[in-house]
Amino acid sequence: MTITDAALAQLAINTIRTLSIDAVQKANSGHPGLPLGASPMAYTIWQRHLRFDPTAPGWADRDRFVLSPGHGSAMLYSLLHLYGYDLPLDQLKSFRQWGSKTPGHPEWHHTAGVEATTGPLGQGAANAVGMAIAEKYLATLWNRPGHTIVDHHTYAIVSDGDVMEGVALEAASLAGHLALGKLIYLYDANEVTLDGPLKLIMSEEVGARYAACGWQVLMVTDGDHDIGALDRAIAEAIADTSRPSLIVVRTTIGFGSPKKAGSSAAHGSPLGDAEVAATKKALGWDPASSFEVPAAARAHAGEAVARGQAAHAAWRERFAAWRAAHPELATQWDAAWAGQLPAGWDAAMPTWKLGESVATRSASGKIMGAIAKTVPWFFGGDADLGGSTKTIVPGGDFEGRTGEGRNLRFGIREHAMGSICNGFAYHGGLRGYASTFFVFSDYMRPAVRIAALNQQPVIYVWTHDSVGLGEDGPTHQPVEHLMSLRAMPHLWLIRPADANETAVAWKLALTRPTGAGGGPIGLVLSRQDLPVVTPAGAPGAERGAYVLAEATGPVRAIVIATGSEVQTALAARTALEAAGVGVRVVSMPCWELFAEQDAAYRESVLPAAITARVAVEAGVTFGWREWVGTRGVAIGIDRFGASAPGEEVLEKLGVSAEAVTAAVRGLL
Amino acid sequence: MTITDAALAQLAINTIRTLSIDAVQKANSGHPGLPLGASPMAYTIWQRHLRFDPTAPGWADRDRFVLSPGHGSAMLYSLLHLYGYDLPLDQLKSFRQWGSKTPGHPEWHHTAGVEATTGPLGQGAANAVGMAIAEKYLATLWNRPGHTIVDHHTYAIVSDGDVMEGVALEAASLAGHLALGKLIYLYDANEVTLDGPLKLIMSEEVGARYAACGWQVLMVTDGDHDIGALDRAIAEAIADTSRPSLIVVRTTIGFGSPKKAGSSAAHGSPLGDAEVAATKKALGWDPASSFEVPAAARAHAGEAVARGQAAHAAWRERFAAWRAAHPELATQWDAAWAGQLPAGWDAAMPTWKLGESVATRSASGKIMGAIAKTVPWFFGGDADLGGSTKTIVPGGDFEGRTGEGRNLRFGIREHAMGSICNGFAYHGGLRGYASTFFVFSDYMRPAVRIAALNQQPVIYVWTHDSVGLGEDGPTHQPVEHLMSLRAMPHLWLIRPADANETAVAWKLALTRPTGAGGGPIGLVLSRQDLPVVTPAGAPGAERGAYVLAEATGPVRAIVIATGSEVQTALAARTALEAAGVGVRVVSMPCWELFAEQDAAYRESVLPAAITARVAVEAGVTFGWREWVGTRGVAIGIDRFGASAPGEEVLEKLGVSAEAVTAAVRGLL
Repeated sequence: MTITDAALAQLAINTIRTLSIDAVQKANSGHPGLPLGASPMAYTIWQRHLRFDPTAPGWADRDRFVLSPGHGSAMLYSLLHLYGYDLPLDQLKSFRQWGSKTPGHPEWHHTAGVEATTGPLGQGAANAVGMAIAEKYLATLWNRPGHTIVDHHTYAIVSDGDVMEGVALEAASLAGHLALGKLIYLYDANEVTLDGPLKLIMSEEVGARYAACGWQVLMVTDGDHDIGALDRAIAEAIADTSRPSLIVVRTTIGFGSPKKAGSSAAHGSPLGDAEVAATKKALGWDPASSFEVPAAARAHAGEAVARGQAAHAAWRERFAAWRAAHPELATQWDAAWAGQLPAGWDAAMPTWKLGESVATRSASGKIMGAIAKTVPWFFGGDADLGGSTKTIVPGGDFEGRTGEGRNLRFGIREHAMGSICNGFAYHGGLRGYASTFFVFSDYMRPAVRIAALNQQPVIYVWTHDSVGLGEDGPTHQPVEHLMSLRAMPHLWLIRPADANETAVAWKLALTRPTGAGGGPIGLVLSRQDLPVVTPAGAPGAERGAYVLAEATGPVRAIVIATGSEVQTALAARTALEAAGVGVRVVSMPCWELFAEQDAAYRESVLPAAITARVAVEAGVTFGWREWVGTRGVAIGIDRFGASAPGEEVLEKLGVSAEAVTAAVRGLL
Repeated sequence: MTITDAALAQLAINTIRTLSIDAVQKANSGHPGLPLGASPMAYTIWQRHLRFDPTAPGWADRDRFVLSPGHGSAMLYSLLHLYGYDLPLDQLKSFRQWGSKTPGHPEWHHTAGVEATTGPLGQGAANAVGMAIAEKYLATLWNRPGHTIVDHHTYAIVSDGDVMEGVALEAASLAGHLALGKLIYLYDANEVTLDGPLKLIMSEEVGARYAACGWQVLMVTDGDHDIGALDRAIAEAIADTSRPSLIVVRTTIGFGSPKKAGSSAAHGSPLGDAEVAATKKALGWDPASSFEVPAAARAHAGEAVARGQAAHAAWRERFAAWRAAHPELATQWDAAWAGQLPAGWDAAMPTWKLGESVATRSASGKIMGAIAKTVPWFFGGDADLGGSTKTIVPGGDFEGRTGEGRNLRFGIREHAMGSICNGFAYHGGLRGYASTFFVFSDYMRPAVRIAALNQQPVIYVWTHDSVGLGEDGPTHQPVEHLMSLRAMPHLWLIRPADANETAVAWKLALTRPTGAGGGPIGLVLSRQDLPVVTPAGAPGAERGAYVLAEATGPVRAIVIATGSEVQTALAARTALEAAGVGVRVVSMPCWELFAEQDAAYRESVLPAAITARVAVEAGVTFGWREWVGTRGVAIGIDRFGASAPGEEVLEKLGVSAEAVTAAVRGLL
């Protein structure tokens, strides 16, 4: 490195630092400590290694960069500005303000160049693992001899807080197991967290832990200054293609701040005007300046942009050659990246006949097999319950070294599974799914929330959906989960009544978009066999709720049910009709979708005039008032379950046709 | 070990094994693999080391034993039977049946001798950490020179699945940091999980990872046979008082089963009658026998019981001497173990005057300080946000080596924090609490669920309770959390309107019992200052909901609100009353508690005749139909939040007095 290079590097780094603290100070809110300490490593990644094109933030083969400690967002926005993304200085000046592109924590799809919504710690680290898996799978799916069109790295900056979170620990174990050689973490080891020095809460050897998980572990002892060492470590990480790499970078939180550097005072509060000025002075910056980007720094950053754009241009040429040579793959590519499905993707969807009996998890398994045949970028797996969730599709286990196989065994790591699936969605090109028992949706809930916030159509296959699972008992029997997840914006929860409704659920899931109107989908499926009660295609299910069985004669009462309780509702209807009581049965597999229907349709299914309404669902009744009204009755399970054969538990806990019949009679 | 000893050991181990597979087979449901593989280590703990008295399962100073892989419950029940607990063979014969003491996964307080509700993997490992912390804290609190009354070990068997889960990884890191020398894990390393060989999903060096976290790591290479090695390893673990110990025990899942040993086929399904017989034969057991407990095995186990009972008797003497020497401590002891509070515990509770302005988190902090003075066994901490959640009480940080200090810095490990607090409750003697931002309740939700299932009064201090927290943005702003947690049975969620309601909330929390009527309590507190709108004692708040401001003249409408929106409701009332509209404001800090009131009281607060009802709460409106009725209107936030100053976000998202006023006018 020549002196000029070193000076330019310092100038660029201090530009990032000072932009960040200016943004925080102007907002009078935010986190100055991380940007001051981590700018050298971020600069080294972006300036020397990251392959990106700010004019094409969606370039499929760009390198990915994740800032897992999202509270350092000011640094990310400063990087995006300096490196030519569409983020003018005015946006940095409106950091953390209503309507800005610069929210307190980075939000994917809200700001060009932001690769992941981070902030809740640990998840960004797991997202990066998902991105690296996606790269590996898609490279194997689409690269051909002489044509390499998927070939990029995933970088993440992770913090002390990230590496303490269980989700990151799970993800690290899986990344090592899968030998994700193109995954590189720079660990900002500043040894300070919000409440004080790290030693108050952690004394483990983080590097040794990652090494135990199969990672290459490198060390940079002076991350505040030693750009050369950072550069060499990153190069070494890139060179080791057989393992993910963790670069432990010792830094000083709040570097440059005379009064706050190295202390938690720099973490989460603005420095204050005087300390901002003092910090600038200490960095050799004009203390009176504000949001200053020296032309030399901009020009220097432009060299990295030029490098990235040249790579992008070269890739375009390779891509064109590939497209010409492999038009059938190009058709896949176009659909996959656009979030579309191949023509005729659902032609081979199985159907079931009235009167058959099949668990919705089993039906789902068959449906997934059909989808897997026509949608090669349909990719996911399970948390060591694939044999039970029936989600294993033909094609073998995913192998991290080769990228072959399409069933990813996430291990007993539900939270990482959720965050890794978010990583698939961030990466693009994959349609990801995750499966486990419904009760363990709690373990992955923080990741589900981020998918919902992002409106990403991640698919969750949650089986063993009620006390009907039986003997495993209350620790494994969901009761509150349906309602607790229905409360989450943008998430669709679909609990099909039978196999044919399950097929509709899968179609809804696969065609749900990203962004407006979009969001994740939870399929909630039975362990136990259920009679097929709908014709093929389950017409009406696609509207969230519909009249499955109309009353003979005038409708005197409506019974609303979901999932396995639709058969209960039908049995009650039969009994009541036999006694001359006209009962309509409404199957309501998806509340959210029904709520989105127009008022006329909703009125046609649940006419306001009919107030004798009974809901039946094997879960808490909390929330059912919405559909049964003030007069109506909800039959459910307002307690935890019990260990016994499933049918017995349902009956003992009062979920039965008799209970429904009695409730209807009580209302009439 | 003489030959006789070895033969007796084998007999006892095979008794545990065969009882377990018989129970599973009779239920035709359950997990035979773990009992067959882990019985030798369980036997060695119980026979040689565990200090217990089956006739006094609540003996405070007993050693604790946690079976973290709760699916191996048949083994635990077999141990309890063999070692003289109140669990007759008939109970083993009704394994996993309705009403039995032997549910599919162990349930605390349901079966004498079961120390923890386990099954959802990873949590038991963290529970054990909580027990070891409790032991250390209480030892320092109550032991005196010449009087050692708290001095016991915590043993846990953990499985491959446990050590993969994030919660266990977090807990291990904290246990190492705290140097919990009396914590001993025996890791049943059978290298098989439900879906197949462990190598499919994990390739890390588990021992090295625990060593990196500061644990002593020991190895037993033949856990199927080598009782001597198991015994020596446990002795070595006990001898190292400066570190927790992990004993890696290589075992064979399904040991003894000719066709299924060593494979996942043994994991989660009954062996089948023929294979049960073949297994018994291979173990040297009578294949025709069933639920057989040889007298020699029972006598042999009785020796361990006698050892434990002798220890118990010796402890009773020490305890009596201590009681005599330290009556004031004995008074504490009695109250603490009975879940009671000292007389006058709330005498120093702060109160606030109408018109003051204080964030409920800050009020809570002062209240906690007052409680800490009078209740020395009030013990908990935060996940690196103590400065923000205001939960740090006088007394310094908890130090694992000395047991001194009472603020436990859990680190950025929310899930472990939750499970460790469950460990406090299992252990007894402590009243535990945990704090973090409300949005991160998602991270700890699996542990909250188990506390709810157990009806344990663990207290969660969840602050930054709405979009009112402002600039941190949607990743940090809870919107669905109130409703998603209200859906959970037995959990009380209390969202006080002001400082005085916060004091009531704390009183409710601290006086909530364990067991019937009990359960965990979530205090949901504001970041922002709130005006004090209730008099000291907030009369009525203790009933969950009450009339805070009555209409002048006839009640024409009711506005119901919680937390920070009570001020919004009051402002709307003022505007409406000025226009001559009589409006009642109901403050409803705790839905669950209000729902438990008698019908007359509920009718007095929310008369059925008044259907013009508006609810206002800064969260999703899902669920409010219960209280506003079919006609009513809920004002809330049915979307994720936004990054901007808190008041602006609330206003932009429509949570305002104007919106409430308009809604009331719309209904009249």
